[in-house]
Amino acid sequence: MNHIQGDLIYEGKAKRIYTTKNPDEVLVEFKNDATAFNAKKHSKIDGKGRLNCLISVALFKLLETSGIKTHFLELQSETLFLAKKITIIPLEVVIRNVATGSLCRETPIIEGTKLDPPLLDLYYKDDELGDPILTEARIKLLDFIDDLHLQEIEKIAREVNLILVKYFFLLDLSLVDFKLEFGFDVDGNLIVADEISPDNCRLWDRTKSDPKDRILDKDRFRQDLGGVIDAYGEILKRIQGNSRKAT
Amino acid sequence: MNHIQGDLIYEGKAKRIYTTKNPDEVLVEFKNDATAFNAKKHSKIDGKGRLNCLISVALFKLLETSGIKTHFLELQSETLFLAKKITIIPLEVVIRNVATGSLCRETPIIEGTKLDPPLLDLYYKDDELGDPILTEARIKLLDFIDDLHLQEIEKIAREVNLILVKYFFLLDLSLVDFKLEFGFDVDGNLIVADEISPDNCRLWDRTKSDPKDRILDKDRFRQDLGGVIDAYGEILKRIQGNSRKAT
Repeated sequence: MNHIQGDLIYEGKAKRIYTTKNPDEVLVEFKNDATAFNAKKHSKIDGKGRLNCLISVALFKLLETSGIKTHFLELQSETLFLAKKITIIPLEVVIRNVATGSLCRETPIIEGTKLDPPLLDLYYKDDELGDPILTEARIKLLDFIDDLHLQEIEKIAREVNLILVKYFFLLDLSLVDFKLEFGFDVDGNLIVADEISPDNCRLWDRTKSDPKDRILDKDRFRQDLGGVIDAYGEILKRIQGNSRKAT
Repeated sequence: MNHIQGDLIYEGKAKRIYTTKNPDEVLVEFKNDATAFNAKKHSKIDGKGRLNCLISVALFKLLETSGIKTHFLELQSETLFLAKKITIIPLEVVIRNVATGSLCRETPIIEGTKLDPPLLDLYYKDDELGDPILTEARIKLLDFIDDLHLQEIEKIAREVNLILVKYFFLLDLSLVDFKLEFGFDVDGNLIVADEISPDNCRLWDRTKSDPKDRILDKDRFRQDLGGVIDAYGEILKRIQGNSRKAT
């Protein structure tokens, strides 16, 4: 159905990765599974995979046109895209423009504080350890990434933030925070991987003032607010409306 | 009984602080309370306050003779010492020479790994937030300490580590890790405060090989190993034996 003929090489909480005939390329399939709090909360939401796939593809294309290298190659179906095969770096890079979520549980920073410059937090990607936050000293100790590549990752993440903040602003959306993952392609280039969707971006509707109504991201699932598909669909609608205006 | 005539100005998990007639000095009283896991586990252990007070005083004197400024002024009774009044900095500075405890729960570093250079972790001192670990970026954001003082704190903490590692080695003890707290005295000097005792140092007996037998610190309480007072008493005995040899 989905043109998948390769072998499953990885299954995560929200995606599956398959081999293709080309050893340098993989297929990325989006699932409908919704998980939160390190998968302690789990559900299936029909249509979520499609929305996250189409939103991610639109954002990867946007980044590529701005000179940021990503793993995206070609959309294959509404839940499937072809991507460069990468060696993933076990880092979750989180950029925060407004304080909320774990930052406010772990520091006395008040919910809603504007963060200027944006705060960059690095987490070790490891479900068993609960994706712990990493200090610079602990990154050095773990020794899985050298200083120069880490600096490059931080530079790219901040560039991606500038591009996405501006883009979403024009769609009347506030990019509150988001997570990026990086990998090396077969040529050793550092590239943006994984997905960029309402599953790992906090997006608030700037046309709404109610703190719950404005949430258009996975916090609707985390906080049992309902309307996940409507919210994700609203983001895709605005992205597609913008593409039509641009063409 | 304890010559305390001042007002109680602070009560923590293991100590009480009282005013004195001199506004620049306070009395530090050690309690017998034992707490762990952010006070979720709590008990009283007769004699612990005395041992922690006498051990701390011996170690503060050792640091002072090595040129490290501390808040200690004078022992008043076996559970009470006179100290400089300080403004505490809400930082817990942890130096680790061997990987154990939370480091091994939060990273894939193997228990018992020797850390060279020693790892320095900074935590935000806030019981309600569970003393969260701080990245450099989060320290900047919280803005409670400037860069220069932070550098000085890290430098002093590493010097204290060198002094204590050597000292304990001569007593056949391994200093696995320990926590320091710092404050500013009334003249604005950065000084080592709080206590330095088996409540906040991990100390292993180098004459024992069994991983449980060798523990002479609060891990005996955390892990329900029993023998807390015997362990703390053994440390004080070795410290006092060393003083007698030296005089």
